[in-house]
Amino acid sequence: MRIAVLGTGPVGHALATRLVHLGHDVWMGSRDAAGEKVVAWAAQQGDRAHAATFADAAHEAELLVNATGGSVSLEMLASIDEADLEGKVLVDVSNPLDFSQGFPPRLAPAIDDSSAEQIQRAHPGARVVKALNTMNCDVMADPSLVRGPHTVFVAGDDIAAKAAVVDLLASFGWPRPDIVDLGGLIASRGLEAYVLFWVNVRMALGTNHFNIAVVR
Amino acid sequence: MRIAVLGTGPVGHALATRLVHLGHDVWMGSRDAAGEKVVAWAAQQGDRAHAATFADAAHEAELLVNATGGSVSLEMLASIDEADLEGKVLVDVSNPLDFSQGFPPRLAPAIDDSSAEQIQRAHPGARVVKALNTMNCDVMADPSLVRGPHTVFVAGDDIAAKAAVVDLLASFGWPRPDIVDLGGLIASRGLEAYVLFWVNVRMALGTNHFNIAVVR
Repeated sequence: MRIAVLGTGPVGHALATRLVHLGHDVWMGSRDAAGEKVVAWAAQQGDRAHAATFADAAHEAELLVNATGGSVSLEMLASIDEADLEGKVLVDVSNPLDFSQGFPPRLAPAIDDSSAEQIQRAHPGARVVKALNTMNCDVMADPSLVRGPHTVFVAGDDIAAKAAVVDLLASFGWPRPDIVDLGGLIASRGLEAYVLFWVNVRMALGTNHFNIAVVR
Repeated sequence: MRIAVLGTGPVGHALATRLVHLGHDVWMGSRDAAGEKVVAWAAQQGDRAHAATFADAAHEAELLVNATGGSVSLEMLASIDEADLEGKVLVDVSNPLDFSQGFPPRLAPAIDDSSAEQIQRAHPGARVVKALNTMNCDVMADPSLVRGPHTVFVAGDDIAAKAAVVDLLASFGWPRPDIVDLGGLIASRGLEAYVLFWVNVRMALGTNHFNIAVVR
């Protein structure tokens, strides 16, 4: 598949690299297609890996992954031609964390909205699916880093888009029974609020390589 | 031990009942000591169970459990003589959910504060420990309802108070390795935000009898 990974930070890097290894053609989107990080990544990853602007990456791709920080996602997406979002699955991995007041971070936007819903409202043609925002990026891309069953969540209003994302997660190594569908995109409110809790657990455990398992 | 369970809803009922069964003397605190729910509970549970006002329950007890809704906790605690909180462990199980805008609920107070911290600021003499707010009340009181290891969290600024609450949780049947200390009371922000996520999972699973396990 032709996939755009929008964002050059640790999340974008981990997901784009995993996708190249799985045989996809990947455009890593950046503010500047000649930027150091994106060029280094593309050079290292070989023929299937491409450095691009956000707009060009979206233009090339069939499926998009938003791996920018939640506070800049809307601005980033606004730089993309709306026609290049139309009908495409957009996996939103972002968390709208606000560190401007120090640590622990606050959530922005307010809790009666979510970054994913804002993105969907701003781009009604995109088929937004929230996924993978509840764990460290190494674990996102390689769930075998955590021992025993553990859970990843998806939420979105487009059933077919969600099914496509579930297939993508399965290809990362997430066993299908561990992929939990939380329903509509409104569940992103809980998924994004979760990250405040994740930060606390991460501090207590002293490692990024953990996750939660939903157990009954 | 002499324990006050403040609140007569499902959470108060489950915890107070469990505590009586474990051999504690329990005062269930209510707005009205002659209220139907609290009187029925005390009559059903026998000699160790007492119906009381919030103030009288706190006066009698060595350890207090706040099992009222987060939106009314401060008002409830204000009805208690400050001397009856001084130096006592106060387990805060509350979640500041606001259903006034419909479902899913919003969080109040804002995300850069927590109900537990508000309680601690309002009652500096109390030794507030956040615990048990991350699962259904049946599971709080009887973790064996969920199969396999699963996790309960504590947070608080008073180490000895936290140790007392860990002992209490162990007496409920929580294995000590499954009790995770998230550090200071500030971690209540994440623990309370978590409940928005919990609501989503609960809707998706269709049962209250689940929890999460932290896995590495």
